Amino acid sequence: MPITTRATELLGIEHPIVLAPMDDVAGGELAAAVSRAGGLGMIGGGYGDADWLSGQFDAADGVRVGCGFITWSLARQPALLDRALQRSPAAVMLSFGDPVPFAERIKASGALLLCQVQNREHAERALEAGADLLVAQGNEAGGHGYGSRTTLTLVPEIADLVARRGLDVAVLAAGGIADGRGMAAALTLGASGVLVGTRFYAAAEALSTPQARDRAVAAAGEDVRRTTVYDIVRGHPWPDGHTISVLGNDFVSRWHGAEPELHRNLESATADYRSAVDNRDYTVANVTVGQATGLVDSVLPAADIVTAMAEHAGTTLSVLAR
Amino acid sequence: MPITTRATELLGIEHPIVLAPMDDVAGGELAAAVSRAGGLGMIGGGYGDADWLSGQFDAADGVRVGCGFITWSLARQPALLDRALQRSPAAVMLSFGDPVPFAERIKASGALLLCQVQNREHAERALEAGADLLVAQGNEAGGHGYGSRTTLTLVPEIADLVARRGLDVAVLAAGGIADGRGMAAALTLGASGVLVGTRFYAAAEALSTPQARDRAVAAAGEDVRRTTVYDIVRGHPWPDGHTISVLGNDFVSRWHGAEPELHRNLESATADYRSAVDNRDYTVANVTVGQATGLVDSVLPAADIVTAMAEHAGTTLSVLAR
Ligand SMILES: Cc1cc2nc3c(=O)[nH]c(=O)nc-3n(C[C@H](O)[C@H](O)[C@H](O)COP(=O)(O)O)c2cc1C
Ligand SMILES: Cc1cc2nc3c(=O)[nH]c(=O)nc-3n(C[C@H](O)[C@H](O)[C@H](O)COP(=O)(O)O)c2cc1C
Repeated sequence: MPITTRATELLGIEHPIVLAPMDDVAGGELAAAVSRAGGLGMIGGGYGDADWLSGQFDAADGVRVGCGFITWSLARQPALLDRALQRSPAAVMLSFGDPVPFAERIKASGALLLCQVQNREHAERALEAGADLLVAQGNEAGGHGYGSRTTLTLVPEIADLVARRGLDVAVLAAGGIADGRGMAAALTLGASGVLVGTRFYAAAEALSTPQARDRAVAAAGEDVRRTTVYDIVRGHPWPDGHTISVLGNDFVSRWHGAEPELHRNLESATADYRSAVDNRDYTVANVTVGQATGLVDSVLPAADIVTAMAEHAGTTLSVLAR
Repeated sequence: MPITTRATELLGIEHPIVLAPMDDVAGGELAAAVSRAGGLGMIGGGYGDADWLSGQFDAADGVRVGCGFITWSLARQPALLDRALQRSPAAVMLSFGDPVPFAERIKASGALLLCQVQNREHAERALEAGADLLVAQGNEAGGHGYGSRTTLTLVPEIADLVARRGLDVAVLAAGGIADGRGMAAALTLGASGVLVGTRFYAAAEALSTPQARDRAVAAAGEDVRRTTVYDIVRGHPWPDGHTISVLGNDFVSRWHGAEPELHRNLESATADYRSAVDNRDYTVANVTVGQATGLVDSVLPAADIVTAMAEHAGTTLSVLAR
């Protein structure tokens, strides 16, 4: 029997599992596969390449999906939101920046508004914006994050904050959830669903390379580092306090903690980085995953991931309840 | 109905809730109160003051309790272990250092051996030592910790490691657990019990001061910092990579990130710190809690904490299983 929660009702889905809108990794094919399996697929709007985003909506092939934006980046090219809304996404997720300037247009379009938050202050701002769902993201998450709150304590604290306001806003847990155990834990903590990135990074339909996926499958949770070195070489002006979770490698060992030196050697380090991306050399290029990578031990079709996670969460809860 | 797990069987207790052996905060009275309520109380052996430890065993008044040691510190005065074992503790926990040199004597005494671990390498060493229970400690924990693994991902990864070896070793989750939701989450993740510090820091029987407890009750999870500045002024030679989780305050703001300067001003900073401890001035002295402090909103008798946590974990699981 599927697990029904406030999130499944609000999002109109069967399993309370949402694909994280991973930058250039969650394309239309992956998003559609997650939605077809009963979750909700989210295309990664990332830093905002309008043509890429259109192409990925095409690739979703009419399946009901949503998309996500990095909010500070969207603020520099707000027209991108209109392009996305023309595709009638089921939901739009905003993360890493002030959601208020975009909230009204999103909600007026009929899309649900998800806001990813990393602390209580972010959550309060998202509630002001009228978020339909809050995504409480812990520091163990793959990709970018802010601050040091972890999923286990952040989720109940955000759930309590929402409950105190008497609001009908669902909370999703993000960060560290890769299997039915993590999903069951999220539900016990007061979330009504999960947003999952790292586990889907190693999905067959993801736009990650096979070489990067193999590294993610082989890695343990301790192999992960939070750093800013990749943002420096990519020239992405992330606001202070944000770091990205990646697998440690030679490049991170070389430059993390030596950022002033990296800035002085920016041209050559950037060239190294770009050629490593082209050559799929992950001793230098980034494998963007979180601590949950230690729980990922195979590449699977997205539908299998969704089905197994939902089923295993259900059996975990019913076995323990006995 | 109480939740029965491998940990309750091994430890011979009713609820799978163990009091963390908090340095100078978990004394005999608190440990006895937790044991009487059906959990297992652990006296904090800390850095090893033999007379303090004896006094606290006396204060436990014959109730069955255990105790814990900071392993690298115990290695400097190994005779302390004999003093502790003379009191026939139900269990001894070793944390932060190599357990192997002490394991045999502990197990020969009839005490159960708990080893607190922060990653897979530590876990493997603890299994070599013959640990009866592994305590998987996430970075959100109060007190000292090592590395950046969080409870949500570390617990299942350690549970998998134990299962692959086919060993009958129970896993306890530590870090971020303050209520029935957190306890239920720990069980779904594959732990068979929890080790709890921060919530008991604000227990009526704790040796924390009322002023420090009030700060813990008022704090949010974001108010916590991991730092080494208190170890510097206390002259505790913690091995590299270890930090302590405390509430942020003026002292932490002043010195964290300015450690070389702190070393140059050690005498006056140490004097400031010591007088603040004497005056219970927590703008300077440490309130040693983890992120779970955001979930602690009252000072309660330890028995109430144990009972409510166990009961609420049970109802959380059975409500979700429906
Ligand atoms: C490869 C990758 C790329 C990501 N890109 C984005 C992004 O563009 N926008 C965003 O809001 N979150 C992004 N995230 C973070 C996710 O939204 C989510 O918080 C995270 O994946 C959840 O933790 P998990 O990776 O442990 O499942 C990304 C995560 C990964 C793994
Ligand atoms: C005040 C305080 C003192 C602590 N002292 C010790 C200690 O002496 N030895 C030890 O192994 N752990 C110590 N810890 C860590 C605990 O063993 C445990 O990992 C932690 O409290 C669990 O996380 P929680 O605080 O979120 O419950 C201490 C924790 C606190 C809060």
